Amino acid sequence: MDLRPLIRDVPDFPKKGIVFKDITPLLGNASALAFSIDAIATAHIGKGITKVVGIESRGFIIAPAVALRLCAGFVPIRKPGKLPWKALSESYGLEYGSDTIQIHEDSLEASDRVLLVDDVLATGGTMGAALKLVQRAGATVVGTAFLIDLAFLGGAKRIGQPVFSVVAYQ
Amino acid sequence: MDLRPLIRDVPDFPKKGIVFKDITPLLGNASALAFSIDAIATAHIGKGITKVVGIESRGFIIAPAVALRLCAGFVPIRKPGKLPWKALSESYGLEYGSDTIQIHEDSLEASDRVLLVDDVLATGGTMGAALKLVQRAGATVVGTAFLIDLAFLGGAKRIGQPVFSVVAYQ
Repeated sequence: MDLRPLIRDVPDFPKKGIVFKDITPLLGNASALAFSIDAIATAHIGKGITKVVGIESRGFIIAPAVALRLCAGFVPIRKPGKLPWKALSESYGLEYGSDTIQIHEDSLEASDRVLLVDDVLATGGTMGAALKLVQRAGATVVGTAFLIDLAFLGGAKRIGQPVFSVVAYQ
Repeated sequence: MDLRPLIRDVPDFPKKGIVFKDITPLLGNASALAFSIDAIATAHIGKGITKVVGIESRGFIIAPAVALRLCAGFVPIRKPGKLPWKALSESYGLEYGSDTIQIHEDSLEASDRVLLVDDVLATGGTMGAALKLVQRAGATVVGTAFLIDLAFLGGAKRIGQPVFSVVAYQ
C-alpha cells in the first residue's frame, strides 16, 4: 500500500522553513492505519518483545496498537511533570536549548525486551534520549520503529540500534 | 479480569488534594491492555463506527487501538498549536480559568459515525468540548468510551451521550 498520498506536506510548521509531515490523513484512513501498525508489528514478531515504549504525544498513537499486535505491554515516555510516579529523566540538545523526557522507574524489568516507537525519525535526538532511559531502567533494547523516517537527516546512523520505518524519505 | 489492582492511586497529583488514578501499571500489563481495548471495541461492534476520535495525550494511547479493532480510522483532538492544518477550536471551563482543544476541520465527513475515547471521565468538561467539535465538524456521535469512569463526579450525566467505561469508581 502506498501511504505517501496520505502524508500531507505542511510548509512553515511548526516554524518558518520547516516542511511538516502531517500524518493525520493516514491515521484517519482505516486501511492505512491497519497497514502501518501491521507493518511495524510483523517486522518484530518472534523477537520476544515484552514491552513497546512510545514517546509522547504522537508515539502514543502508534505504540500501544503495536503492543497489542505483539501481545506486549505498553510503557509511556513523557515530558517532565506528566508521569505521576517516581521517574528517570534524560535531557537532550535541540537546535536552540534542550528538552527532557521521563520514564517511570518501575515500568521495566531486567527481563524486558523493548521495542521503542515514535511517529517520525528526524535527527534522532529524542529517540537517543529514549534509548538511554530504557537502558537505565535496566531493560534490553531490541529495536526502534517509526511510521516515517526522514532519512535525508541521517537520524538512523546516530541511533546505533536497528531502525524500522514504514515510509522513508531519501 | 479485575483491573483495579493495576490502577495505582497517587495522592496529591497533579496537585494537593487530588488522588490521581495512574493507569501505567495496567497499560504495561499485556493481558490487561488487551482486555481493556477489547472491552471497548466489543461494546461498539456492529454500530457502523467509521472513526474513533481520541483526546490528547492519554486518549491517544487507547483510541487508535480501538479504531484498529473496529476497522475504523483514528482522528486526534489536540491542544492549541499542535495540529498543523486548519482546525476548529472549542473552549471549556476549568475550576480556575479555561482550556481549549482543536480538531482538523477536514478530519470528519457528514457520513462519519464517531466513537469518542479518553482515558478517564471526571467532570466531563473535556469530553463535552470534544463532542461539540465532532458535531461542528458535521459527523454523527455514536457514543463515548473511557478506561475509567470516576462515577462519583457525575460526568456521565453532563455528557448527554452514551457512556461506556471499563472500570467505574462509584
